[in-house]
Amino acid sequence: MADVMGYILKRRSIRAYADRPVERDQLLLLLQAAMAAPTAANSQPWEFVVVTDPDVLAELRRHLTFGRYNAPAAIVVCGNPRIANNSAGERYWVQDCSAATENVLIAAAGLGLGTVWIGVYPLPGLVERVSAVLGIPEGVTPLCVIYVGHPAEEKPPRTQYDERRVYWQRYEPRKRRAKLKNAKHQ
Amino acid sequence: MADVMGYILKRRSIRAYADRPVERDQLLLLLQAAMAAPTAANSQPWEFVVVTDPDVLAELRRHLTFGRYNAPAAIVVCGNPRIANNSAGERYWVQDCSAATENVLIAAAGLGLGTVWIGVYPLPGLVERVSAVLGIPEGVTPLCVIYVGHPAEEKPPRTQYDERRVYWQRYEPRKRRAKLKNAKHQ
Repeated sequence: MADVMGYILKRRSIRAYADRPVERDQLLLLLQAAMAAPTAANSQPWEFVVVTDPDVLAELRRHLTFGRYNAPAAIVVCGNPRIANNSAGERYWVQDCSAATENVLIAAAGLGLGTVWIGVYPLPGLVERVSAVLGIPEGVTPLCVIYVGHPAEEKPPRTQYDERRVYWQRYEPRKRRAKLKNAKHQ
Repeated sequence: MADVMGYILKRRSIRAYADRPVERDQLLLLLQAAMAAPTAANSQPWEFVVVTDPDVLAELRRHLTFGRYNAPAAIVVCGNPRIANNSAGERYWVQDCSAATENVLIAAAGLGLGTVWIGVYPLPGLVERVSAVLGIPEGVTPLCVIYVGHPAEEKPPRTQYDERRVYWQRYEPRKRRAKLKNAKHQ
């Protein structure tokens, strides 16, 4: 167990990468992790474009204002309700594909790889540009670009756990919570 | 590494639970895992309601048509852009909260606990009913209910990896792909 929690905390956004490719076998493991995520009613409304070609990566970077990092690989996670097993994919593809993305990030941490999640959807301009670069047709939506590579920066493991974000049994409006806390301190 | 990938594959939807509570320390670990997920621009647009009170759980179950399981605990993951660090939370809270949810599921697998992700958002009726039960105010949206407990059913680890969902370098329309494949087979 220590390991799993350790890798969940080790997963940090890495934005500097060594000039060394990611092995195909490792990319396949990441895809296995992605497709081990749960989906609503097991609809599996996802597809993945793996990019390792330097020219395509350069073209992607040109369009990703907030994602110009030198990673040797990218996994573009796409929603495609039309190939889903059922109609749940229409409503839940964003959540399903986000779970798949998080699985990739954690599996990568386990492999000693660095990753960063670059948001694409729901910004229409970005969706359009990423689709144009990768030839993604209408009806298929790139949710995000995950850069993958060997990290060239180190970050300590962390959680941003904050007990003020946690309620027990029922939600407690913040004002009332503050009052209760003050009352206790008196 | 074996461990991380192992737990990602071990995470299965568990719908039968032993009649035994989940320790508070374990629930706190799951919340630490949740808040170790990445968020767009580090906005952290999330809040969590942990329910262990049998009466509140029963009330929740009454309203969750697809989630009437006997778990001794539930973590309700909520989006709240108003308490986020910046405006990215407005656009990305669903993705951020989904990543947090997946972290909980994997951490739970590491602890030997079983979980199942019950979708709430974006079904307006469900959002309303869960909010009513838990006193969640307007502006805060329950994304999902995660049931947590000691599993009373066993499922083998698995991935649903399917190479037909994977493209390399660029997206390839399916028809063209099928043709290429047939051509190769001739």
